[in-house]
Amino acid sequence: MAHVLSVSCSLSTSTGSRSISSKPSNQFPSAASVNLPISTSPFKRLAFQTNYTSQKRRTIYIKAISTSQEPIVQPGSGSHETSSEPSVPKKVMVIGGDGYCGWATSLHLSNKNYEVAIVDNLVRRHFDHQLGLDSLTPIASIHNRIRRWKSVAGKDIQLYIGDICDFEFLSEAFNSFQPDAVVHFGEQRSAPYSMIDRSRAVFTQHNNVIGTLNVLFAIKEFGEDCHLVKLGTMGEYGTPNIDIEEGYITITHNGRTDTLPYPKQASSFYHLSKVHDSHNIAFTCKAWGIRATDLNQGVVYGVRTGETAMHDELCNRLDYDGVFGTALNRFCVQAAVGHPLTVYGKGGQTRGYLDIRDTVQCVELAIANPAQRGEFRVFNQFTEQFSVNELATLVTKAGKKLGLEVQTISVPNPRVEAEEHYYNAKHTKLVELGLKPHLLSDSLLDSLINFAVQYKDRVDPKQIMPSVSWKKIGAKPKTVAA
Amino acid sequence: MAHVLSVSCSLSTSTGSRSISSKPSNQFPSAASVNLPISTSPFKRLAFQTNYTSQKRRTIYIKAISTSQEPIVQPGSGSHETSSEPSVPKKVMVIGGDGYCGWATSLHLSNKNYEVAIVDNLVRRHFDHQLGLDSLTPIASIHNRIRRWKSVAGKDIQLYIGDICDFEFLSEAFNSFQPDAVVHFGEQRSAPYSMIDRSRAVFTQHNNVIGTLNVLFAIKEFGEDCHLVKLGTMGEYGTPNIDIEEGYITITHNGRTDTLPYPKQASSFYHLSKVHDSHNIAFTCKAWGIRATDLNQGVVYGVRTGETAMHDELCNRLDYDGVFGTALNRFCVQAAVGHPLTVYGKGGQTRGYLDIRDTVQCVELAIANPAQRGEFRVFNQFTEQFSVNELATLVTKAGKKLGLEVQTISVPNPRVEAEEHYYNAKHTKLVELGLKPHLLSDSLLDSLINFAVQYKDRVDPKQIMPSVSWKKIGAKPKTVAA
Repeated sequence: MAHVLSVSCSLSTSTGSRSISSKPSNQFPSAASVNLPISTSPFKRLAFQTNYTSQKRRTIYIKAISTSQEPIVQPGSGSHETSSEPSVPKKVMVIGGDGYCGWATSLHLSNKNYEVAIVDNLVRRHFDHQLGLDSLTPIASIHNRIRRWKSVAGKDIQLYIGDICDFEFLSEAFNSFQPDAVVHFGEQRSAPYSMIDRSRAVFTQHNNVIGTLNVLFAIKEFGEDCHLVKLGTMGEYGTPNIDIEEGYITITHNGRTDTLPYPKQASSFYHLSKVHDSHNIAFTCKAWGIRATDLNQGVVYGVRTGETAMHDELCNRLDYDGVFGTALNRFCVQAAVGHPLTVYGKGGQTRGYLDIRDTVQCVELAIANPAQRGEFRVFNQFTEQFSVNELATLVTKAGKKLGLEVQTISVPNPRVEAEEHYYNAKHTKLVELGLKPHLLSDSLLDSLINFAVQYKDRVDPKQIMPSVSWKKIGAKPKTVAA
Repeated sequence: MAHVLSVSCSLSTSTGSRSISSKPSNQFPSAASVNLPISTSPFKRLAFQTNYTSQKRRTIYIKAISTSQEPIVQPGSGSHETSSEPSVPKKVMVIGGDGYCGWATSLHLSNKNYEVAIVDNLVRRHFDHQLGLDSLTPIASIHNRIRRWKSVAGKDIQLYIGDICDFEFLSEAFNSFQPDAVVHFGEQRSAPYSMIDRSRAVFTQHNNVIGTLNVLFAIKEFGEDCHLVKLGTMGEYGTPNIDIEEGYITITHNGRTDTLPYPKQASSFYHLSKVHDSHNIAFTCKAWGIRATDLNQGVVYGVRTGETAMHDELCNRLDYDGVFGTALNRFCVQAAVGHPLTVYGKGGQTRGYLDIRDTVQCVELAIANPAQRGEFRVFNQFTEQFSVNELATLVTKAGKKLGLEVQTISVPNPRVEAEEHYYNAKHTKLVELGLKPHLLSDSLLDSLINFAVQYKDRVDPKQIMPSVSWKKIGAKPKTVAA
C-alpha cells in the first residue's frame, strides 16, 4: 500500500493550490508551464497494475492528483463554452475515460455541463508499450489532458487512476464522486489483443467480466439509483441469417410466444467477454433493480470531435495497427502512407459503423434518458452498414481525389468469420431518442485522410499488417520482437 | 514453489513402492493400514490454493501421490467387476472427480474399464470447512477413496491434485495423462454460494470461466482430438414461456430462418458462469475445431451408485444444507430428522431432475459417442420434470409410509425466480444415445429417506434453512458465525 512511484508532476500532500511545471513534450509546445490547483485526498489513489497478463496482480498506490478546485486559468471563450446553456447538474463517472471513445465522451459530457469523473488505470497506454505500438496522433498524458481542458473550457474533470478489478479502489472512487450515471468503457477492447495468446485471452475475460461485476456491486451497494451505461458491441450478435434486433427477439415456437434475449454468437474472446457482461448485467437488473443501458456499438471511425479539436493537447488517439486499429481508420492511414488497403479474405464482412461524434452523442442521449429501475435496455449503436469491400472502394475514391494512389490487396483472413453473409441490424432506438447521425461522407473521408497525411511520419509500417491469428493462438506467452 | 505441506500420508521422493499407514478416521474402521504402491514424478503436484475468495492466489506445491503402479491388494470379486466385459481402452480425465457427481462418475467409468484420472483441487471440501457445513454421509479422503477402489475393484485411478486455473499445473497433468476425453465437473457448482457476497460471486465466475478457458487451451495445445464433456446446467435457459430445446432453436423472423443458440436467462452468478462457459466453448469449437458436448444437467438426486455402494469408504457425499443441498435430497433429509420440508415461496418452480445413477450413465454415453471435430453438441441431461410442490408431496407420502410425520412449510423465497411458470424442456438426445432412465420411484424415495435416517445423527439443523439471499448479497465479505 505504501510504495510511492515518482510521477511527472509534483504532488501536494494536502488540499491546496501550487505551481506545477507540466513538463510538456516537444509535441505539445502550447502546453508550457501553467499554474493549476492540486487537491489530494487520502482516498484518491493511483493504482499501477504491473503484471497485466497474469492472474496475479500487484497494485502500488500513490496519491492522486485532482483538478477539482477553483480554476486559476480562466475558461476559454470558444464556441463550445456552454456556460450560458441551462445547466442540469448530473454527475457522470466515465470508466475508461482516457481511451479512444472514453476521452471524447468525457470532454463532450463535460462540455455539456455534466460533472465528469474519469476512472482509468491507463492500461491501454501500457498495451502500446508492451506491443511496441503507438497512436498515429501524439496524445498528452491524462493529467495534461485534464489540465488543458480546464484551461480551454474552464471545466473540471475529476481523475481517479486505478483498476476497477480492485473493488477497494472502485468503492472509494464511487463513494467519493457519487455518480448519477456510470459510463463503462473500461474494458480491454480489441478482438485481436484477446487472441494473441492464452494469457491475453484470460486477461481480457477476467478484466472485463470482473470489472463489470465490481461496477454492478458498487452501484448496488453505494448508489442503487445510479444508471449504468455499458459499452457492448454489435459483435455480440455475430452474423445470424435473420435480422438482428436491439437486444431482444420475440419468438413464436410450438404455438407459444415469448420475448427473449437475442441469441449471441461472438467470435473472439473479447467479443465473448461483452456477451458475458450482458448476461451478468441483465441478471442484476432483474434481481437487484439495477437500471442499465447496454450500447451495442458498431465500429467507430474518425478522430476529431467538437471538444478534442479545441487544442492539440486534447487530441484523441488514432490506432492504425493490426491489433487496435479498426477497419475504416486503418484504411485511411494506409491510403495516406501509400500502403495497400488490407482487406481480410473476401471482404464481404458487413458490420455497423458510426462516427465518433455519434458515439459521444449516443452516450449523452442514454444518460439524459435513463433506463427505469430494473430495466436492462439494449441499443444498437451504429448509423450505417458497410462491407469491408465497400469501405475500401470509398477510401480509394477519396484518396484519388486527394492525389493519392490507393491500391487494395486481399490478405489471408486472420479471423474466423463468415466473409459473405446476410446482415441487417436494427438501429432505431437511439434515433428515437434524438440521435442526429453524422453519416459517412466524402468530406469526412477527406478530412480523415488529410489528418492521416498530417501525421504520416509517425506511422510504423511494421504495425499495419495483421499479426494475430484466431487459429494459431497458443498457450505460450507471445512477446513482440524489437 | 518449494514450500512443502504435511499431508496425512507419507510421500516418497522417488518412484517406488512403500508401506503407508492410511490413518483412517473412526468413521472408516474398514480402511485400516494397507500397503499400497506409491509413485511420484516431479510433474505431479498438489496445488493448495489458500485464498479462494480473492483474486490473488498463492499456490503451494508439494509432490503428489499416485496409485498407478501394479496392485498389491487383489481386485475384489463383486458383481460390479467388469473385467470380463470387452475392454475398449479410453483415457478419461475427470476434473472435479472428488465431488458429488464427479466421484460417482469416476468410479463408474473406471468400472467400465476406462482408464481414469481425477483432477481436483479439493476446494469443495474447503468450502465446507469455511462455511461450517458437512456432508450427511461421512466421506473418506480422496487418497483413501482411490486406495479403497483399488482394493475393491482392482482398478487404478490416477490422481492429480491441483487447480485448473493454474495453467502450468493443468498442462502437466494433461501431458502426463494424455486423455481421450475430459469430463469437466471442476467448477464451483452452487447458486447460493455464488450469491453469498461479492468475493464469492467473483470467485465463482473467475474460477469457472478461467478454468474452462484453460481446459480449452490445453486441448488445443496438447490434444486437439480430445473430446470435452462439459457439465452445464438446465438453469442456463431460465424459465422461458416457450419450449426449451437442446441447445439450439430454429427461428423464423421477418421471412428468414436460422438455427441459433437457445437464448439464455440464468438467475445466479453460478448459473451465469455456465452460460459464459457455453459461449466460450461454442466459439472454440468453431474457431479451433474443438469437439465438445455440453451436458445441461438438471437437479441431481440420490446418493448410491453401483460403485459407491461397494464399500463404506467409497460412499458419496450428500448435501442437505441451504448452500449446497438441492431440492429433493434436502427434502429427504428434512423428512428423516423431522424438520418441515422447506418450500421456497409458492413452490411452483418446475425443473428437470435426474437420479445420480443416470448422471454417470449420461456421461458415459457422451464419452462413448463423441462429438465431431468442430461440433458443439448440447444435451439436456434430466429425465423428469417436477415442481417443488410435487416433490414435497412425494416425500411426504414416502415419509408417512415409513412412519415419519412430514410437514411442509413455505419459507420466503431467498432467490429471484418465477414461482409459477410454463416449463417444458426437451430431453431426447441422450435417450436416443441409449439412456435407460431411473425414474423417481417410491422405492428410491424410501431408500433415500432410509439412508438419511441412518445418518440423521450427523445432521446439523442450523444448516437446513436458506441463509443466502439473492437480493441482500453485499460487497462486504460474509463470514459464518460459530
